[in-house]
Amino acid sequence: MLGLMQDHPLLISSLIEFAERHHGDRAIVSRRVEGDIHRYSWADAARRSCQVAHAVEAEGVPFSGRVATLAWNGYRHLELYYGVSGAGRVVHTINPRLHPGQLIWIVNHAEDQVLCFETSFLPLVQAIHTHCPTVRRWVLLCDADKLPHDSGIPNLVSYEAWIGAQSDRYTWPRFDENSAAGMCYTSGTTGDPKAVLYSHRSTILHAYGVALPDVTGLSACDVMLPVVPMFHVNAWGTPYAAALVGASLVFPGPALDGKSLYELIEAEKVTITAGVPTIWQMLLAHVSANKLRFSRLARLLIGGSAAPLAMIETFENDYGVKAIHAWGMTETSPLGTAWAPKAKHMDLSAQQCQPLKVKQGRAIFGVDLKIIDDQGHDVPWDGKTYGDLLIKGPWILRAYYKGQGSPLIRDEHALGWFPTGDVATIDADGYMQITDRSKDVIKSGGEWISSIDIENIAVAHPAVAMAACVGVPHPKWDERPVLLVVKRAGIEVSREELLRFYEDKIAKWQIPDDVIFMDSIALGATGKILKTKLREQLKDYKLPGV
Amino acid sequence: MLGLMQDHPLLISSLIEFAERHHGDRAIVSRRVEGDIHRYSWADAARRSCQVAHAVEAEGVPFSGRVATLAWNGYRHLELYYGVSGAGRVVHTINPRLHPGQLIWIVNHAEDQVLCFETSFLPLVQAIHTHCPTVRRWVLLCDADKLPHDSGIPNLVSYEAWIGAQSDRYTWPRFDENSAAGMCYTSGTTGDPKAVLYSHRSTILHAYGVALPDVTGLSACDVMLPVVPMFHVNAWGTPYAAALVGASLVFPGPALDGKSLYELIEAEKVTITAGVPTIWQMLLAHVSANKLRFSRLARLLIGGSAAPLAMIETFENDYGVKAIHAWGMTETSPLGTAWAPKAKHMDLSAQQCQPLKVKQGRAIFGVDLKIIDDQGHDVPWDGKTYGDLLIKGPWILRAYYKGQGSPLIRDEHALGWFPTGDVATIDADGYMQITDRSKDVIKSGGEWISSIDIENIAVAHPAVAMAACVGVPHPKWDERPVLLVVKRAGIEVSREELLRFYEDKIAKWQIPDDVIFMDSIALGATGKILKTKLREQLKDYKLPGV
Repeated sequence: MLGLMQDHPLLISSLIEFAERHHGDRAIVSRRVEGDIHRYSWADAARRSCQVAHAVEAEGVPFSGRVATLAWNGYRHLELYYGVSGAGRVVHTINPRLHPGQLIWIVNHAEDQVLCFETSFLPLVQAIHTHCPTVRRWVLLCDADKLPHDSGIPNLVSYEAWIGAQSDRYTWPRFDENSAAGMCYTSGTTGDPKAVLYSHRSTILHAYGVALPDVTGLSACDVMLPVVPMFHVNAWGTPYAAALVGASLVFPGPALDGKSLYELIEAEKVTITAGVPTIWQMLLAHVSANKLRFSRLARLLIGGSAAPLAMIETFENDYGVKAIHAWGMTETSPLGTAWAPKAKHMDLSAQQCQPLKVKQGRAIFGVDLKIIDDQGHDVPWDGKTYGDLLIKGPWILRAYYKGQGSPLIRDEHALGWFPTGDVATIDADGYMQITDRSKDVIKSGGEWISSIDIENIAVAHPAVAMAACVGVPHPKWDERPVLLVVKRAGIEVSREELLRFYEDKIAKWQIPDDVIFMDSIALGATGKILKTKLREQLKDYKLPGV
Repeated sequence: MLGLMQDHPLLISSLIEFAERHHGDRAIVSRRVEGDIHRYSWADAARRSCQVAHAVEAEGVPFSGRVATLAWNGYRHLELYYGVSGAGRVVHTINPRLHPGQLIWIVNHAEDQVLCFETSFLPLVQAIHTHCPTVRRWVLLCDADKLPHDSGIPNLVSYEAWIGAQSDRYTWPRFDENSAAGMCYTSGTTGDPKAVLYSHRSTILHAYGVALPDVTGLSACDVMLPVVPMFHVNAWGTPYAAALVGASLVFPGPALDGKSLYELIEAEKVTITAGVPTIWQMLLAHVSANKLRFSRLARLLIGGSAAPLAMIETFENDYGVKAIHAWGMTETSPLGTAWAPKAKHMDLSAQQCQPLKVKQGRAIFGVDLKIIDDQGHDVPWDGKTYGDLLIKGPWILRAYYKGQGSPLIRDEHALGWFPTGDVATIDADGYMQITDRSKDVIKSGGEWISSIDIENIAVAHPAVAMAACVGVPHPKWDERPVLLVVKRAGIEVSREELLRFYEDKIAKWQIPDDVIFMDSIALGATGKILKTKLREQLKDYKLPGV
């Protein structure tokens, strides 16, 4: 017997309809590529999303056809999110920092029919467009009068001309909530990129999860600035969660340096922001160097890679900004866990809670976690035992696009769990901590050394701006850890001092064998350290004494 | 093309599994019928819910078969919520305050197969059981050694014996999320009661909505005491939302007087509670008379009927407890709207916000509202124009059980909206205010007078403990309002003084024609004033001068 409640599919269009009807006057503020500030409302965004929907239909893109974006965080990207997905097409957000060869591969693999791109990527598109036969229409995200006449790209149109002639009224279609809504390729370090295909259902359920009090606690009073790119797992779902609660959105465009972010946060009275630790290092460096304060910023969602304790302490103690440590992946929509206290922590001060926050938090309802050993058995939730981290839930990947494989591991009830490729512990209270990527763990003498632990200690040293730890082959111990360090400007530190810094902090055999000072460490497109590149750079390096 | 995310139905069993795995040690505290306090954890509740599931299966109740409850808010009721629904059967919560004849009608209409009841309802069940042929098993919510031997009820078993022999391990089945999970009859004032059949999907989506920051803002640090009965629209979904976030639950049993509630709130460090205004009047009377304070109580969800401004002010200004005014019905799961500020209110003080809080708040994402005129056309959202309130969403009723009718009104897109039977305004910011029940509105000389407005003014007078306004036939004006008042003990007020109290507050023609002082005003089973009964009592009454 079925229940007798109304049958409404969970559709992304319902988010923009809701924001328009119930929070229509809330601001959407964008720093544009041109550097100026664009300002409008959810109601405006809704009307222009309708125009996008008509434009996509007029272009002949069929249901589920892919419309790609090469774009920063901004209002036009937001309109593409809602207009394309709302109309039943798939918005395919491409990471513009990929190598042109990868870009071509991805556009062809996805069979993108329309590709919308920022003016900053015009040279890139000029270089690749002839290799993208599926793209019938190139849309430059600019005003009609800014379209270059000599781009050499056939079928190029300005975004404003593309949508300008369309009606801003559109009846959002109703369809199966499991339909594809968004697409994002993983920046896999090995093999071809793989595409994750989000559904309307997964996106809506994830947005509810993101807004919960123990995750972002997002409300209609919030002003959310997603620094995390909209081409990186939908900016962690923040553009959807903001519509769900009627929050304001502030988009930084391409200006992600500390000064630009700080000024935007202050000018727009941002209350919550979201991004990776390297972004926050830059922001902290700017505010610290200029002795600045945050007037309204209250919360900071940190994900993408582990947040060092020093960063959490600095934000909370020195700037009064609550750090919310979270974890997820492209395959998990992305939020799987977030750190929030339990009642048992209520008698602790903020300072006493901070050391707990190096853990990535606990499961958000909707997902479940487990950790398993090499034999596939559950390992204890004792906060110490490592295991491969598995996750399941309605916003977790089942299979990659185009039969690139379903990696799920079945349990005794035949339920599929996604293996994250992370090694983690879970404690008795359900708090999970990523110990390492399974491929980055340093295997020394049969024991595992977490490269992340080594790095976190290093960045707590005042002279260290950035640190990376990689395993280097060793004839006796298989691998030994080596620390690569970028020094903070104007502060000196020696190899020996840094190694001594570890002495009371970890077991002796876990201390790196060497420190290498570098001028810079390369970051990937999502702001993470590229360890594959570091290992390449070290391929002729020899450990001391070997 | 479908998305490629995991396929997990939204099932109530996932809530109890989640609470067990991630918040297993959080307390569930219950004041029992016997008066003592029972204390255990979500993990215990989960294990005993498994036993319930086995017991229901052993009883031969088929999938979707109804298991009824006549029970207070307590841990056994919670186990029935999860054990019965989780196993794919339907938990049918019956209001024990109904007339025995109505009870019999409902049990037969629902075809309940098992009926679980508190010891306080033994005489009631003794009186009705022979009229309930579908019930094959009566379960008394007591320990095995407390079962009376001479009850006269065949197939009677104690709850503890019923579940005691069953395993506390159970693999929750997976099935269509649209399956029926819960059933609740409306206490309709006209015609036969009608049953609302909640689904697993509607229950989970509603629970996400309840927990949102702009609704209850429920977190794992909260201790939630639902005063609203579990037989009344699932205690507004709080038992589900608490599991979703890992909050603690405190159940008051049958002791809903001000003293008992206050003591439980203090002893268990309750942070949030939920109930109808009449309950809060009693609680305020107790704390005021005894000069008490709340040590941890921070939020108070008020629904079921309109919260008077005086009550909101008293809680917020005198006791520091935030009042959350909400609105819903049995047919809406129930939460449709809740009051929370928007950013534009952030510069107002709490005191300045309070007058806004007499509105019932704004739509929670998932539902949408509209107000229409007699011709079915949308009326403006200007905060002044009245209209019939309609609502739609995945946790809103489509049809009543057993073909008792689908009341939906189709819009121009053929989407069905549920007509609430309420008359309301919506303002430009989406805040809705119930003006009246359409049947309680007093129609005087072609204009409408809101009975609720008249009552709210009356209860703001210090001498008024309770007030009700009803329309009385008038030869010239069709109807005229009459105010019925219960005076506060020890404070005198005259008819003339009360009528003068209205003078600067509403238009002259809206002022009641008369005041009738009463010793008491009858409340219905859910704590609402029974206006039908008042109208009956007034059937021989004549207006002054008529």
